Amino acid sequence: MAEHTVRAFTEELDALAQEVVRMGGLAEIAVNDSITAVARRDTDLAQAVIERDAKIDAAQREVERRAIKLFALRQPMASDLRVVLTAWRIAGELERVGDLAKNIAKRSLILSQAEPVQLTRSVERMGKISAEHLKQVIDAYANSDLRAAVSVWHSDDNVDAHYNSLFRELLTYMIEDPRTISSCAHLLFVAKNLERIGDHSTNIAEYIHFLVTGEEIATERPRADAGGGD
Amino acid sequence: MAEHTVRAFTEELDALAQEVVRMGGLAEIAVNDSITAVARRDTDLAQAVIERDAKIDAAQREVERRAIKLFALRQPMASDLRVVLTAWRIAGELERVGDLAKNIAKRSLILSQAEPVQLTRSVERMGKISAEHLKQVIDAYANSDLRAAVSVWHSDDNVDAHYNSLFRELLTYMIEDPRTISSCAHLLFVAKNLERIGDHSTNIAEYIHFLVTGEEIATERPRADAGGGD
Repeated sequence: MAEHTVRAFTEELDALAQEVVRMGGLAEIAVNDSITAVARRDTDLAQAVIERDAKIDAAQREVERRAIKLFALRQPMASDLRVVLTAWRIAGELERVGDLAKNIAKRSLILSQAEPVQLTRSVERMGKISAEHLKQVIDAYANSDLRAAVSVWHSDDNVDAHYNSLFRELLTYMIEDPRTISSCAHLLFVAKNLERIGDHSTNIAEYIHFLVTGEEIATERPRADAGGGD
Repeated sequence: MAEHTVRAFTEELDALAQEVVRMGGLAEIAVNDSITAVARRDTDLAQAVIERDAKIDAAQREVERRAIKLFALRQPMASDLRVVLTAWRIAGELERVGDLAKNIAKRSLILSQAEPVQLTRSVERMGKISAEHLKQVIDAYANSDLRAAVSVWHSDDNVDAHYNSLFRELLTYMIEDPRTISSCAHLLFVAKNLERIGDHSTNIAEYIHFLVTGEEIATERPRADAGGGD
C-alpha cells in the first residue's frame, strides 16, 4: 500500500481502539453510579444512569460500523485483523455491561421505595470490586498490557466468592424477616448483575490476551460460583 | 468475478447460514431438555445438557471463523455483507442461549436435592413458551421469513408478563413457608434465565429483519417486565 494509505489505515485502527476505550469509560461510570444509587437510595442518579445507557449503545453501534467498514475496505490480516476483531468484541461486552448497570439502577428505584435492608453494604462492597476489575481491564486494553489483563482474569473467582456468600446472607435475612423478602430478592438480582459484570471483565481480559498473543488464554477460566453460574 | 467463484461464494454463504440453523437446533434441544430436567428432577438429563454446551460453543467459534474468512477473502458488500453479519450475530445470541440452558440445568441439579416446590409447574409453562419462540425464530431465519420473525418480536412481552406474575407468586410462597426460600430463589433465577432466552429470541428476530430489509426493526421493543429488565 502507498505510504499515505498505510498511515491512514493505522490511524483508523488507533481511532477504533480509542472509541472502545472511550466506551469503557462510559461503562465504568455507569457501573459506579448504579452502585452508588443502590447504596445511597439516590433516585436522581439512578435515572441518570438509565438515560445515559443510550450513549453506550450508540458507541457500540459506532464501533461496529467502523469495524465493518475496515473489514470491507482494508481487508485487515493477521495482527491488524485481531485489532479490529478485538475492538468489536470488547465493544459488545461493554454494551452488555452498560445494560447491567442500567438494570441495577432500575432495581435501585424499586429498592428506594421500600425499607432499607442491612445487606446493602455487602452488595456495595461487591460492587466496588466489580467496578475496580472493569477499570483495570479497560486500562489493560488501552495499554495493551497483557500482565494486567491476565491478573484481572485470575481474580474473577473473588467476585464469584462474594456472590456466593452474599446469596447465603440474603437467604438468612429473608428467613428471619419475611417482610424483607421482596427487597432481598431485588438485591439478589443486583448482586447477580455485579457477578455478570465481573464475567464480562473476564471476557475482555481473554480478548486482550488474544489481541496481544494471537492465542486463546486457556480452556477453563477460574470459576467459584455455586449458584448455577448464570 | 468468474462464474465458478460466484458459485463458490454463494455456496459459502449458504453453508454459513446452514451452520447457524444447525446451531439453532442444538440450542432448542438444550432449552427444552433443561426445562424437562427442572420439571422432572432428571439429573442425568441435566448433566447431558451441561456437557453438550461445549458443542454449541464450538459451533459459534466455527461460524465466527468462517465469517472472518469471508470478510477477509470475499469482501462481501450490501446484501451479502448482511448475510455474513447476521450469521455472526445470530450465532452469538445462540451461544448465550446455550449458556442459559446450561445454567438452568445446573440449577435443576441443586433443586433436585431439595423438596419439590409447587411453583415448578408455572416455571415449566413459561419454559415451553420461551422454547417455542426460539424454535419459531430459528425457523424464520432458515426460511428468511420476515413475517414470522416480526411475530416473535411482538410476542416477547408475553414471556415478560409470565416472568412478572411468576416473580410475585414465588414471593408469596417464600413468605408463607420460609423453608422453601432457597428453592424458590433458584427457581426465580431459572425463570429469569427463561426471560433472557426470550430476549435473545427477540434479538434474533431483529437481526432477521435487518437481514431481509436492510433496516432496523424499530427503536423500542415491546417490554413488559417490571422487575428491572435484567
